[in-house]
Amino acid sequence: MCPVLLSNAKLLYDPYSLRTYADKSIYLEDGIIEAVSESSTGYKTDLVIDCKRKLVLPGLANTHTHLAMTLLRGAADDLSLRDWLSKTVWPSERRMGRDHVRAGTALGLVELIKSGVTAFADMYFFEDAVEEETVKAGLRAHLAPAVSDGGVPASDVTDVLAMVKSKRNSNLIRWALGPHSLYSCSKETLLTVAQAKHDLNLPVHMHLAETRWSEHRSMEIYGLREVDALERLGLLGEDFLGAHGVWLTKQEVNKLGNYRGAVSYCPVSNMKLAEGGHPPIPEMINSGVRVSFGTDGAASNNSLNIFETIKVGALLLRHMRWDPAVLSPAVALRMATETGYAVLGFPRHPLAPGGIGDLITISLDTPSLQGHPAMSVASSLVYSPPLNVEDMIVDGRPVMVERNILHLKEEKVIEDFRKASLSLEAAS
Amino acid sequence: MCPVLLSNAKLLYDPYSLRTYADKSIYLEDGIIEAVSESSTGYKTDLVIDCKRKLVLPGLANTHTHLAMTLLRGAADDLSLRDWLSKTVWPSERRMGRDHVRAGTALGLVELIKSGVTAFADMYFFEDAVEEETVKAGLRAHLAPAVSDGGVPASDVTDVLAMVKSKRNSNLIRWALGPHSLYSCSKETLLTVAQAKHDLNLPVHMHLAETRWSEHRSMEIYGLREVDALERLGLLGEDFLGAHGVWLTKQEVNKLGNYRGAVSYCPVSNMKLAEGGHPPIPEMINSGVRVSFGTDGAASNNSLNIFETIKVGALLLRHMRWDPAVLSPAVALRMATETGYAVLGFPRHPLAPGGIGDLITISLDTPSLQGHPAMSVASSLVYSPPLNVEDMIVDGRPVMVERNILHLKEEKVIEDFRKASLSLEAAS
Repeated sequence: MCPVLLSNAKLLYDPYSLRTYADKSIYLEDGIIEAVSESSTGYKTDLVIDCKRKLVLPGLANTHTHLAMTLLRGAADDLSLRDWLSKTVWPSERRMGRDHVRAGTALGLVELIKSGVTAFADMYFFEDAVEEETVKAGLRAHLAPAVSDGGVPASDVTDVLAMVKSKRNSNLIRWALGPHSLYSCSKETLLTVAQAKHDLNLPVHMHLAETRWSEHRSMEIYGLREVDALERLGLLGEDFLGAHGVWLTKQEVNKLGNYRGAVSYCPVSNMKLAEGGHPPIPEMINSGVRVSFGTDGAASNNSLNIFETIKVGALLLRHMRWDPAVLSPAVALRMATETGYAVLGFPRHPLAPGGIGDLITISLDTPSLQGHPAMSVASSLVYSPPLNVEDMIVDGRPVMVERNILHLKEEKVIEDFRKASLSLEAAS
Repeated sequence: MCPVLLSNAKLLYDPYSLRTYADKSIYLEDGIIEAVSESSTGYKTDLVIDCKRKLVLPGLANTHTHLAMTLLRGAADDLSLRDWLSKTVWPSERRMGRDHVRAGTALGLVELIKSGVTAFADMYFFEDAVEEETVKAGLRAHLAPAVSDGGVPASDVTDVLAMVKSKRNSNLIRWALGPHSLYSCSKETLLTVAQAKHDLNLPVHMHLAETRWSEHRSMEIYGLREVDALERLGLLGEDFLGAHGVWLTKQEVNKLGNYRGAVSYCPVSNMKLAEGGHPPIPEMINSGVRVSFGTDGAASNNSLNIFETIKVGALLLRHMRWDPAVLSPAVALRMATETGYAVLGFPRHPLAPGGIGDLITISLDTPSLQGHPAMSVASSLVYSPPLNVEDMIVDGRPVMVERNILHLKEEKVIEDFRKASLSLEAAS
């Protein structure tokens, strides 16, 4: 693997340590940061990225998405979750094939890269196609093939388990199980998933307490609220990643915290689907639940811009709690980097020798990054996010250089996406 | 004035008519759209902008901002409105001079242009410096010199009236009066402003019902809620533009509607300052209040991205009303174009011959604009807003071509801003 040098970075910001550093060069080799030094000379490398006018920071994690749902972006924007699933999403998904998923995922990867996401958690079907596109693009992913009993292709629990058993984790890919939700999987299916989780030691990624109705269904089916039902089923644990958690009670939050479970906060999706609540983020953090940010899929957001999600997530908490200090920008950025990476099971990546080589850069000449001398880097990134990310390195390898995405051809991705989008519609 | 041709635009979207058109050329002369035709030949022009892969739409209006507050961006991000004003904003503003305002405004103009804003309403002091920078950049503005009794420079009502009387409206600039708020101006000052409004036939732009406390202060001072107090003072009318309107009662909404008054919806600022409420947007629209979008200043947002504001505004309503259909993307875009322009007093600008020449373009190859075949242009723009605007024409003249801002030198603007920012801090 070729070494990369980020030379003379004007500014480094490390959300792990909450520190900034000026005028450093970063040398990456074999996937990790080999050196951070004052000088940019003496390093052997084929690729030098000039960072004289740039801010360098660790890449961001998007811990809940369904990339291929770019195919359903804008299909129905004014529906609540239940109508949206039953009238639009599920009927379309029943028609999707592997090539649709591949094309939709590739477009989603382009959007992730442009917004600075170096690692993400995806839950969908034909997740082997997602794996191929992700490895091609050079990102890291926590991949959970979706399990459901709703007739969506490739989501039968037997098929999913066979697929996952045939897979191996790598530097870039970590496999998980994706039982869609308590309401879309039968008890039998969920017990099978829980057994496999224990036998194969796999993480679980599923929708959790997204709506009042999902909690209500859990009571109807199990006589228990969602977290209690998940515990009974044997699905909770440190490697449990629940998406949303909007309607969790304090008792559920405490239980989840005791398990060191994780929740992906998806504020844009929650607001767009008009779920009416907001997740108890401060209470979760205080209880030990590991909280990070997710965009959700493009059909319920509709962008895949993690910077937008972080800002909206901070705004929503300030608004709902009548408290402008409820979530500091520094804590928000830690959630989007350190916690997100930990939740996805990837190694820590502080900006120091030995840290993994997942970095992004932003131009310091971005107008919205200019402000009062007291403005912190964290505040800028959270409240006046940059429109464009300049460079991205993942696992020590360049993914985007000067806004050019290297391993996916953007024009071709868009062309293929348009064909896939039309063919999916034609199949209806 | 040199004619401009937007040749072979792939797509035109007109929020005024809610229609899209394909493959048209737009010829602009003397500030207006002279022709919209199938062919791009036969027009005399020095500037042809190739729009083969672009979407063309009318420019957006940002109806409440304080551009120079870029200088205070990030100065204090975790305070509520009252603390933020008294501890941070007002002390800094008392130290500001004309050159600070000029530098802060120029940076704000760059941000507006990049996010597609062709016309805006600004309220601040040294508004003559804002005028100069705006004319230089080539944007349209509704300029309200701020009046207050808080010791901020150049905001004394006598000085402001002398300045405004010396000014004339132009194609680009429309002058207004900017009494800051009911709580920061004395009754005497507001009566003086009201008299001048009638004598000089000037619009009024002021903060309105932004917090529970501001309504409370109005009750304390006037024994009336804000809209009733404004009526009593003689400040209401068709040319009244109130910013925020978060805590208006139904009775106030009806009264404002009867006057055909206007409210600028500033959701990001409201959420960031943790005001705890949301303006009654559907009720205002139903009552005849003209509602448009504002970013507010960069110190309480902290970006000046109108696309972000539109999206957050739609999301906040969906969230608070538990109703995913509360504000359609088409209505939101009309608010940001047609209504915004009407409120600022600029002529209508539909995409048709005779419409004023305020246009922006966006690349159709933007990843987030790809989606389901049923996705509308309005939905794309509202829910998956483009990261970058490509071109901007205002009053028939190019302002930005292929992301290059023509009349402001971006590097110089940032350099001057940094100096001004440091000199303001040094003065403390």
